Amino acid sequence: MTPMTRTRFQTFDDPSHRAGAQRLAALRAAMLQKGFSGFVVPRADEHQSEYVPPRAERLAWLTGFTGSAGTAVILADRAALVVDGRYTLQAASQVDTALVTPVPLAETSVEAWIEANLPAGGVLAYDPWLHTPDGVARLEKAAAAAGGRLEPAGMNLVDQVWIDRPPAPRAPVLPYPEALAGETAARKLERVREALAKARADALVVSDPHNLAWAFNLRGSDVAHTPLPLGYAVIPREAPATLFLDPGKLTAEASAALDGLAACVDPAGLPACLDALGRAGARVRLDAATGAVALKRRIEEAGGRADVGPDPITAMKAVKNAAEIAGAREAHRRDGAAVARFLAWLAREAPGGGVSEIAAVERLEAFRAEGGELREISFPTISGSGPNGAIVHYRVTAATDRVVRPGELFLIDSGAQYLDGTTDITRTVAVGPPSDEMRDRFTRVLKGHIAIATALFPRGTTGAQLDSFARRPLWEAGLDFDHGTGHGVGAFLSVHEGPQRIAKTGTTALQPGMIVSNEPGYYRAGAYGIRIENLVLVEERALAGAERPMLGFETLTLAPIDRALIARDLLTPGEAAWLDAYHARVREALSPLLDGATRDWLAAATRPLAGDGPAGS
Amino acid sequence: MTPMTRTRFQTFDDPSHRAGAQRLAALRAAMLQKGFSGFVVPRADEHQSEYVPPRAERLAWLTGFTGSAGTAVILADRAALVVDGRYTLQAASQVDTALVTPVPLAETSVEAWIEANLPAGGVLAYDPWLHTPDGVARLEKAAAAAGGRLEPAGMNLVDQVWIDRPPAPRAPVLPYPEALAGETAARKLERVREALAKARADALVVSDPHNLAWAFNLRGSDVAHTPLPLGYAVIPREAPATLFLDPGKLTAEASAALDGLAACVDPAGLPACLDALGRAGARVRLDAATGAVALKRRIEEAGGRADVGPDPITAMKAVKNAAEIAGAREAHRRDGAAVARFLAWLAREAPGGGVSEIAAVERLEAFRAEGGELREISFPTISGSGPNGAIVHYRVTAATDRVVRPGELFLIDSGAQYLDGTTDITRTVAVGPPSDEMRDRFTRVLKGHIAIATALFPRGTTGAQLDSFARRPLWEAGLDFDHGTGHGVGAFLSVHEGPQRIAKTGTTALQPGMIVSNEPGYYRAGAYGIRIENLVLVEERALAGAERPMLGFETLTLAPIDRALIARDLLTPGEAAWLDAYHARVREALSPLLDGATRDWLAAATRPLAGDGPAGS
Repeated sequence: MTPMTRTRFQTFDDPSHRAGAQRLAALRAAMLQKGFSGFVVPRADEHQSEYVPPRAERLAWLTGFTGSAGTAVILADRAALVVDGRYTLQAASQVDTALVTPVPLAETSVEAWIEANLPAGGVLAYDPWLHTPDGVARLEKAAAAAGGRLEPAGMNLVDQVWIDRPPAPRAPVLPYPEALAGETAARKLERVREALAKARADALVVSDPHNLAWAFNLRGSDVAHTPLPLGYAVIPREAPATLFLDPGKLTAEASAALDGLAACVDPAGLPACLDALGRAGARVRLDAATGAVALKRRIEEAGGRADVGPDPITAMKAVKNAAEIAGAREAHRRDGAAVARFLAWLAREAPGGGVSEIAAVERLEAFRAEGGELREISFPTISGSGPNGAIVHYRVTAATDRVVRPGELFLIDSGAQYLDGTTDITRTVAVGPPSDEMRDRFTRVLKGHIAIATALFPRGTTGAQLDSFARRPLWEAGLDFDHGTGHGVGAFLSVHEGPQRIAKTGTTALQPGMIVSNEPGYYRAGAYGIRIENLVLVEERALAGAERPMLGFETLTLAPIDRALIARDLLTPGEAAWLDAYHARVREALSPLLDGATRDWLAAATRPLAGDGPAGS
Repeated sequence: MTPMTRTRFQTFDDPSHRAGAQRLAALRAAMLQKGFSGFVVPRADEHQSEYVPPRAERLAWLTGFTGSAGTAVILADRAALVVDGRYTLQAASQVDTALVTPVPLAETSVEAWIEANLPAGGVLAYDPWLHTPDGVARLEKAAAAAGGRLEPAGMNLVDQVWIDRPPAPRAPVLPYPEALAGETAARKLERVREALAKARADALVVSDPHNLAWAFNLRGSDVAHTPLPLGYAVIPREAPATLFLDPGKLTAEASAALDGLAACVDPAGLPACLDALGRAGARVRLDAATGAVALKRRIEEAGGRADVGPDPITAMKAVKNAAEIAGAREAHRRDGAAVARFLAWLAREAPGGGVSEIAAVERLEAFRAEGGELREISFPTISGSGPNGAIVHYRVTAATDRVVRPGELFLIDSGAQYLDGTTDITRTVAVGPPSDEMRDRFTRVLKGHIAIATALFPRGTTGAQLDSFARRPLWEAGLDFDHGTGHGVGAFLSVHEGPQRIAKTGTTALQPGMIVSNEPGYYRAGAYGIRIENLVLVEERALAGAERPMLGFETLTLAPIDRALIARDLLTPGEAAWLDAYHARVREALSPLLDGATRDWLAAATRPLAGDGPAGS
């Protein structure tokens, strides 16, 4: 079988390119011309988004680095690329280190690097559309500490020298059906206006396209994997809303849906709208997380008050309503059936040495696509065999692809975008008989997963308070994993959605209706990786004798967990009972959707543990 | 037996007094004279300390409220006392609510009350010695939001009208022996200066008397229960240190110990010293948590730079050295013997109805004092029978005292100050047969206690990450407790010492040598309270196969946990084994220190659970 080099939604090309000295030289010439000593190039786009269109890939164009987070600082005689722990190896391999020095964030922050390297008296420039007010304050302090100063560049210097910069995406914008959204856009805007009144703000600038999509019940496809229409919105408390997105992107259906709700104006009209708000002396709420400092300045210069704080839509969007929850359950059933078919295929093919990482990605996407309801994958599938499974953010390319061999583990982390919901699931399976160590580690990860799945907690509890439950079984053996236990997930929106999360940094109280992932792991560098991920829904729990309102999780994801990797004697009877009950649910929900052979495979894959021998405790 | 009304270290008088309208009227007259619309009266003293001398009890003098935290705001026509959840009932009973309105902090912050009540154009005054820069910034914002402004008062207005204000305490200051301190003051100051160099600061103002005591190896007794010498210190990086405390307090031994290390100058000399630093253009580190804004202003007005951040001594003091750890172990053995004698006495006397809450406090203190090594109790003993046990910060008075009756629980939370260590222990015991519900709740609290005691965690883990382990067994039944799981404890210093803690707010990484309490609880209002508290020491743990440096806890406190309150079938075999091993340690450590009768009682109180029936799981 000849491997293809791309699926419908994912390529396997090596994204690396040597950006070359010319681009950097052109940028430096532009700096010199303006009298700047340096220029800051973040990964972020104008919406501080994780997923950006090719047009906003300035960091990759300039340095060759394609990771999802990082900041370059270009000075006349040196340049740094500051990246976090996930990306230190990737940065070193993608950039020309003779031109740009990769700097690990854990050792040196962007600000510390500036403080140590910006020459005294130097002017550091930045694009005010790519930084939040908080971010600019930090840069300002760093430049001052170096004896220099920070100054906004009139136009982004990279854009100035990037001759063949791609145009802005113009993907069609569609209305999101009310039956799936569960609430009209009109009612959502009413709630937004109530929140503005409570915050004593006169208007809201929506800078996060996820929030725009949710509030106006619209979906687009301006970026890969997440159905975003890129744009801004302004929602005044006492006047109609305005969308600032290319009106040419609106389908007739979207135009009709917006009729009477919001005008749609070219993004070039946004500054004039901010000026009008400012002249009226309005207090305008700007999202602290995604609102560019350029928005703040524009409002203030026109005489208004910028009120930097949370966009109230973020919290509303995080709590799914009954229709969104019903959609999520349906999407997970459909997705579970596709994953079950994939796992059955893998169980059949892999032991003979016939499955490569790329082939696995292709098959999984094909199974998902068969019913015709797959809109996108929710992110590039992580398909890691053996040692590649230990690379947390591994992305297979034709160059790194390998066939999974007996005795190895295979980790596959993937998700789908269906109109009724976004999924995200990781399964780790043994190909051939696993080692005792693999079974020990897998079972500890599973115990952590079950500790989250079964957690009961009072209303008001944050994800930070639950995170350690997922780690304790690993800690007991002196092990751990270096990522959060879970992230929020949207409803046919981003697979990474805040503010809720299960992590040390998860300071948002979990509320009924929120969806988060439950994905502890264990990674042995150079050998194998383990992760077990289900999405869970926060729900109320009635408990006899309870003195407080209690919450718990409903597991949404439906797919078997590899029984061959379980060290039975490490599970308590309660943990074994959870797994058996989960597997019974999976079997019951998916069997009607499967062909006979897969149904038989699933029956075996989900049979109770009890049959395997006596329970430990 | 006629109960006494006081022990050596604790009174049982009702601290309430009606402060009366006159004091408030006098304060308002002073406000009027200065042109102030309002005055802020915090509980804090000049060191932002929890334990303050009578001279600094301005809030109690003015309002009658004697809690350890609260802030009054006095306006011309109204006054508020903002207190947290612990103190809402106490505030309502102690203040004359016709004059001062108690305001629950959870509903209205000090700032929100000011914003809503300060008249437009009004000037709110405050004492710059009683607020940190951060606190002043918050007050300023609130006053501005009300359309008024904030202004420092030249002299504290309460002090101005408090005619018979007690003098400053002048308790003798003694050197703390090097054998117990484990490090000379000279070496400690060297380390402080290294930290200053790293922070690029030229000098440190030590505003926290705990830090002064620790760094200079001094102890005093200017406040109750904590051996503090009140004063300030200034430690320049390149010049000798100066103590600003009444030289008349120094004993000859202390003077000798300080010889060549630091000059001792009257506190009135502090402003001149700050001026000199300012004139030299020094960058002076001020403790963000305890440094008054008055210090910052003085330095800045003289031309210096105030660098508000953590006092580096706080982190050094939190990590106990080998001598301090040896002292803590010794103190806990001694204290455990006293507690065991007390518990044996209680077991003998209480079932007959002969033990009142006050009598228990007296007996416990007497047992602790017998060996002659007790310097102080570390805080007023909380001695709560039946419903009084459910009041988390209960303090028995002659008016509330009650005899513990069969069928009730008795909760006693107490601690001692010995020269070699500070202790803090809570035990809950059943008098007569407890109910099934009491046993269920006690066992859940015990499971939480054991989950902390047995926790293993990687270096870098914070107390916030461990806190939920103590709650999960309660959460599983819909229950919880409304306080942190643990606080830091000093070495013959404060029983509440930061920055380490086990609580949602505990963001400091736990380090080997830190001491924290482990004290989950459960409180049923009007019925009973349960708390099980031991102090634990963070220590390194060598673990076969561990991939990360791991830490765990050594339990320092040695006293039996009431076996009659344990619902055996709720404990896992691992939990039962922990309790049996702990009890064996207690028996072995304390028996040599006890008389025959107490030894026999202890042997029974610490016998293995296994004898009672089969283990659950």
